[in-house]
Amino acid sequence: MKYSPALQGLIEALRCLPGVGPKSAQRMALHLLERDREGAVELSQRLQVAVDRIGHCVQCRNLTELEVCEICADTRRDAATICVVETPADVLAVEQSGSYRGRYFVLMGHLSPIDGIGPEDLGLDRFERRVAEEGVAEVILATNPTVEGEATAYYLSDALRSRGVKVSRIAHGVPLGGELEYVDGSTLAHAFSGRRPLE
Amino acid sequence: MKYSPALQGLIEALRCLPGVGPKSAQRMALHLLERDREGAVELSQRLQVAVDRIGHCVQCRNLTELEVCEICADTRRDAATICVVETPADVLAVEQSGSYRGRYFVLMGHLSPIDGIGPEDLGLDRFERRVAEEGVAEVILATNPTVEGEATAYYLSDALRSRGVKVSRIAHGVPLGGELEYVDGSTLAHAFSGRRPLE
Ligand SMILES: [Zn+2]
Ligand SMILES: [Zn+2]
Repeated sequence: MKYSPALQGLIEALRCLPGVGPKSAQRMALHLLERDREGAVELSQRLQVAVDRIGHCVQCRNLTELEVCEICADTRRDAATICVVETPADVLAVEQSGSYRGRYFVLMGHLSPIDGIGPEDLGLDRFERRVAEEGVAEVILATNPTVEGEATAYYLSDALRSRGVKVSRIAHGVPLGGELEYVDGSTLAHAFSGRRPLE
Repeated sequence: MKYSPALQGLIEALRCLPGVGPKSAQRMALHLLERDREGAVELSQRLQVAVDRIGHCVQCRNLTELEVCEICADTRRDAATICVVETPADVLAVEQSGSYRGRYFVLMGHLSPIDGIGPEDLGLDRFERRVAEEGVAEVILATNPTVEGEATAYYLSDALRSRGVKVSRIAHGVPLGGELEYVDGSTLAHAFSGRRPLE
């Protein structure tokens, strides 16, 4: 015996959320139906709107419903400096630290040969060309201090050096093995100011 | 600075799920948009269908998209025995224990004067009448062994005794302070067979 089909279907669909197992999915479905049907309708609509409208910024690859995201379109920001991060959450974390006024490039991942993720999947070919063509003075590598993040930073520093651009890596302060998006603002600010050129 | 409006809206809407704070909501939204847009669309549709179609069985109050749920409509089940539980998850737990072939009544909660939840909110007035009119022989009280669950069982046993119906409470086996839906099937089966009439 299971729940009725519509309820069972909702429970199974909730499993698409990360960290949600069968028991949590059941608890969520029953909670929504018993206590928050308005919330369920709202969530349904927000999901549809998000999927319909949100794509990637053509310049920085960040998630946005605009063709060019607000940060890339902001002419008050320093276009000669680009900070490379792994995810949209990292952009938010850096922005909230208030320590950076340049532009971004969002990899939407990191190099991972084992998963078949190469430089083209991260848009690095286009990124390298753009850096050279647009007269970028400095690229700050803010990928995570994990094995894959370090490898991605190493790959980029190597590829960009031949293009004659200054490449730096954000400094200590971001704990090793940690993830950028969970670091507090002042630690991140410190990491930015203490950045050093990669030899 | 925040995310783009559609993304921010999705993150906020995900907070309607129990146990989901700001950080989890952000992680869920980014996961869906970066890695599982099909899952997001599916979830959106399932939520809408569930809210549109799922109501309460007119007989037992369980969640169902039918007027009379499958269990109440199943003529092979013993109509002379009714098991009273707090939630739809409890019905599922009892069904999966395989120890019970009667009908149910689902309170969708428990008596809680402090929250203003009285007998009418749980449909107990209609339930008492139905028990008397339909010649029910036994009512098994399977509310949770919590303060509120015990109080609800006590209230029902009191109200039903005057109607001349046998009232029993499921036995030990369900740990005190625990919740019925998390108890394994064999413990529940034991609790059913060891039930005793309330004096
Ligand atoms: Zn952009
Ligand atoms: Zn029913």
